[in-house]
Amino acid sequence: MTTYATEPHAPADLAAVYAQVQNFYARQVRLLDALDAEEFAATFTEDGVFSPTPTAPAARGRAEIAAALRAAHARKFGTDPVRRRHWFNMLEVRPGADGLLRTHFYSMVLVTRPWDPAPVTAPSSVVEDVLERDATGALLTRERRVTPDHLSF
Amino acid sequence: MTTYATEPHAPADLAAVYAQVQNFYARQVRLLDALDAEEFAATFTEDGVFSPTPTAPAARGRAEIAAALRAAHARKFGTDPVRRRHWFNMLEVRPGADGLLRTHFYSMVLVTRPWDPAPVTAPSSVVEDVLERDATGALLTRERRVTPDHLSF
Amino acid sequence: MTTYATEPHAPADLAAVYAQVQNFYARQVRLLDALDAEEFAATFTEDGVFSPTPTAPAARGRAEIAAALRAAHARKFGTDPVRRRHWFNMLEVRPGADGLLRTHFYSMVLVTRPWDPAPVTAPSSVVEDVLERDATGALLTRERRVTPDHLSF
Repeated sequence: MTTYATEPHAPADLAAVYAQVQNFYARQVRLLDALDAEEFAATFTEDGVFSPTPTAPAARGRAEIAAALRAAHARKFGTDPVRRRHWFNMLEVRPGADGLLRTHFYSMVLVTRPWDPAPVTAPSSVVEDVLERDATGALLTRERRVTPDHLSF
Repeated sequence: MTTYATEPHAPADLAAVYAQVQNFYARQVRLLDALDAEEFAATFTEDGVFSPTPTAPAARGRAEIAAALRAAHARKFGTDPVRRRHWFNMLEVRPGADGLLRTHFYSMVLVTRPWDPAPVTAPSSVVEDVLERDATGALLTRERRVTPDHLSF
Repeated sequence: MTTYATEPHAPADLAAVYAQVQNFYARQVRLLDALDAEEFAATFTEDGVFSPTPTAPAARGRAEIAAALRAAHARKFGTDPVRRRHWFNMLEVRPGADGLLRTHFYSMVLVTRPWDPAPVTAPSSVVEDVLERDATGALLTRERRVTPDHLSF
């Protein structure tokens, strides 16, 4: 009855891409929050770039990305037991004519410590990704640039 | 193999509409948070209604909506430098036989100040929108009613 | 032009399922947060299992689920007036060959009290659901297991 699916601004393929990106990010974030550094790095392309803050050089390639994740965690939390949860929101997905996807979203991190039900909300950030597909159609992050709000003034 | 797409409760067009609404809100919120008042107002219909709280009259039309956004920001933050991020969640989209979309979602606002990584979580609210399409199929907000939780008792 | 919809990792039916699950959770959560205990319980299968914490036995069947919701609320808040809002994020949906859907997501709860605009963020948790369809194709929760982060060490 409705004709949304065939209207110019509601293409069925945007829906497919949007759902795929959401599912991809859910899986990627789980690896990040579990500190599965190598598996998280493997969600980037081999030459992937990860820039978690504009105040430091980006990590380039999977080995650097995995190392950067471990180093950042050790620097922030030492050996403290914490559960980190990254949340993404207000996701915009823009498929490009070049076959790449550009995304823009907000993120925040909830940090929970043992027995304390109230997590600490850590940086609110803006994230910009470039995603590409491998030969099977699966998504990989080619480039991620994170701008924490408190460093954006 | 699966037949979800053809089942009554999982129409392919719901997916298209749902993704389109998410993308629309991501763009709209970015304009809101950047205080691009005129561009934010332009995401409403020309006779759009924006009611950010039940305790004050709604803004009607784009000029009033833009002015209301600026006034609210000045009242709350003066000239303090802040980054505001609106987050939407638990989005329900109901396409109507009249061609309009009715949505219902939660919202919260994260407010970050320079150099402080911990944002303040400002009101938790419930939002109800009526969305319509322009001639090209693009979405516009016809009506938005926000009920902040702390004023809902 | 783009061919995403037909690529192996971006099936159109994943999009349909993903949107349906999001819409379902939005409605289910609204019932939960409104303390409509019987209606919330009716979003589970008749033999549904709800395990809100690993430290207590799960509720089994709709009557137990409704009773558990009421008891948990009374235990936590007594007769205090609060608005609770459950937020879900980083949703992964995995359709199974058995016709069931397995989901994995993060949750948090925002608790607002009268006149205080700043909600308290209550537990951050990880949730795993098994969803099934009724004869009409509508979703029901067959099983939900919640692991609050602060109890996960």
